[in-house]
Amino acid sequence: MKTFLDCIPCLMKQALRAGKQTGADEKTLKKILDETGSLIKDIPLENTPVETAAHIYKIVSRLTGVKDPYKKIKNENILQAKKLLPELEQKINLAENPLLCAIRISIAGNVIDLGVDKKFNIAKDLDKILYQDFGIFDYDKFKHKLSNSNTVLFVGDNCGESVFDTLLIKQLKKKVYYAVREIPVINDVTYDDAINSGLNEISEIISSGVDSPGAVLSRANNEFKNLFDKADIVISKGQGNYEGLSLEKRDIFFLLKAKCHVIAEDIGVKEDDIILKGINI
Amino acid sequence: MKTFLDCIPCLMKQALRAGKQTGADEKTLKKILDETGSLIKDIPLENTPVETAAHIYKIVSRLTGVKDPYKKIKNENILQAKKLLPELEQKINLAENPLLCAIRISIAGNVIDLGVDKKFNIAKDLDKILYQDFGIFDYDKFKHKLSNSNTVLFVGDNCGESVFDTLLIKQLKKKVYYAVREIPVINDVTYDDAINSGLNEISEIISSGVDSPGAVLSRANNEFKNLFDKADIVISKGQGNYEGLSLEKRDIFFLLKAKCHVIAEDIGVKEDDIILKGINI
Repeated sequence: MKTFLDCIPCLMKQALRAGKQTGADEKTLKKILDETGSLIKDIPLENTPVETAAHIYKIVSRLTGVKDPYKKIKNENILQAKKLLPELEQKINLAENPLLCAIRISIAGNVIDLGVDKKFNIAKDLDKILYQDFGIFDYDKFKHKLSNSNTVLFVGDNCGESVFDTLLIKQLKKKVYYAVREIPVINDVTYDDAINSGLNEISEIISSGVDSPGAVLSRANNEFKNLFDKADIVISKGQGNYEGLSLEKRDIFFLLKAKCHVIAEDIGVKEDDIILKGINI
Repeated sequence: MKTFLDCIPCLMKQALRAGKQTGADEKTLKKILDETGSLIKDIPLENTPVETAAHIYKIVSRLTGVKDPYKKIKNENILQAKKLLPELEQKINLAENPLLCAIRISIAGNVIDLGVDKKFNIAKDLDKILYQDFGIFDYDKFKHKLSNSNTVLFVGDNCGESVFDTLLIKQLKKKVYYAVREIPVINDVTYDDAINSGLNEISEIISSGVDSPGAVLSRANNEFKNLFDKADIVISKGQGNYEGLSLEKRDIFFLLKAKCHVIAEDIGVKEDDIILKGINI
């Protein structure tokens, strides 16, 4: 997805929010905004928003000296999600369609997004998303593709959501490679966060090599690019990965909640819709 | 009021919104954001937000060639407010306390603010604000001061709101100078807009000389500064004038609705509270 004009004030807001999260003083926060502001003229709209975000979160880390501003919140969200696991596992076991139920739960986890200026309540949002209509629902195509697949590249998004992803991965019953960010960026799942989420027990965790809050092939390492080419099915979670991968040529299934109006418009749905969208199928 | 860090992404958003209002193409809008972004490093937080806003709205005018992006909407809002006048006049005449009722109506008009990212519905908001509790209610002090005053400096804010101000001015029963902006900025009331609102019939309209979306003494002309010193009572409408005048030394009564959390915090109230606040009394 290209960068839309509306992304730019939003990126400024994200820079400030991440800076505040580090506990930096007003002078440092102003410097973050100064540098972010000056960067705008160098952002071509053809870039994906997550590529620009990568620059901005690096400004925050450099000026505050804090490499992982959301570390504490990430751990809290993982813990909170883990507490809900037994109840959710039971829900899936009792569901008429366990795979679909696990998809819904995995999408519900996508509300845990600290890059977006939206409050969330995991338990409450879960309840809603379990029964919400899909904005786009390519489930039949997904199921068909899955049944003809042996290997899955699952591109992870946020911490906490990552815990819910374990439930979906169990239902896939395939060899799953779970791709994470190379370094901490916003509350996105890194290798350590993935272990902490229990993903090592049911998948092979790999780093995408990416330092942006969304997978972008031009920033990915060879292992990821290779899997992206070779995996039978690619499942991409969340907005950031949609931003980075939506213009790729291979078939991909995007699972996300459209939390901002720009992405909702790009996908062609309403804000707050939940999506199971296949491209190039 | 000083510029808070949260004002900066908001100012970026305002630049984009005003630019879009002119119908400018994507390339021009990006240029507006580029220039606005580059300006941030030159904004000291000691400035009032409206001083910075003045620079930003000038960037929009210069790059789009449109001097008054909100002209059409301003006229529509004035017309819409005028249609409500007879009904509101009757409400005031029937009120137990006509002055207070007129104050509430004048504050209700303050929802018509296109600098703020909030939707409004004049008729609906009126209904609410007529019965809403005040966050700060210095009414007794206001009434006392008014009863000892002959001349009033009334600092106008937005178009449409300006029409409702006529009702309050009628209740003041004093010699009123209604101060407007020197040039169009956002949807703030200018000389022509004030005439259009019927303010010439019940007050003497003067230009403040100010080109920012809020009165700031350092940018005002001598006539305004002189009246600001000599008027027996100063009534300041809206957020922009609060931003520009809240640190002045003389007694001022601020009438506004706190539409953004930054201003609400500065005043010490909740967002969406309505305010009749006197300072230096």
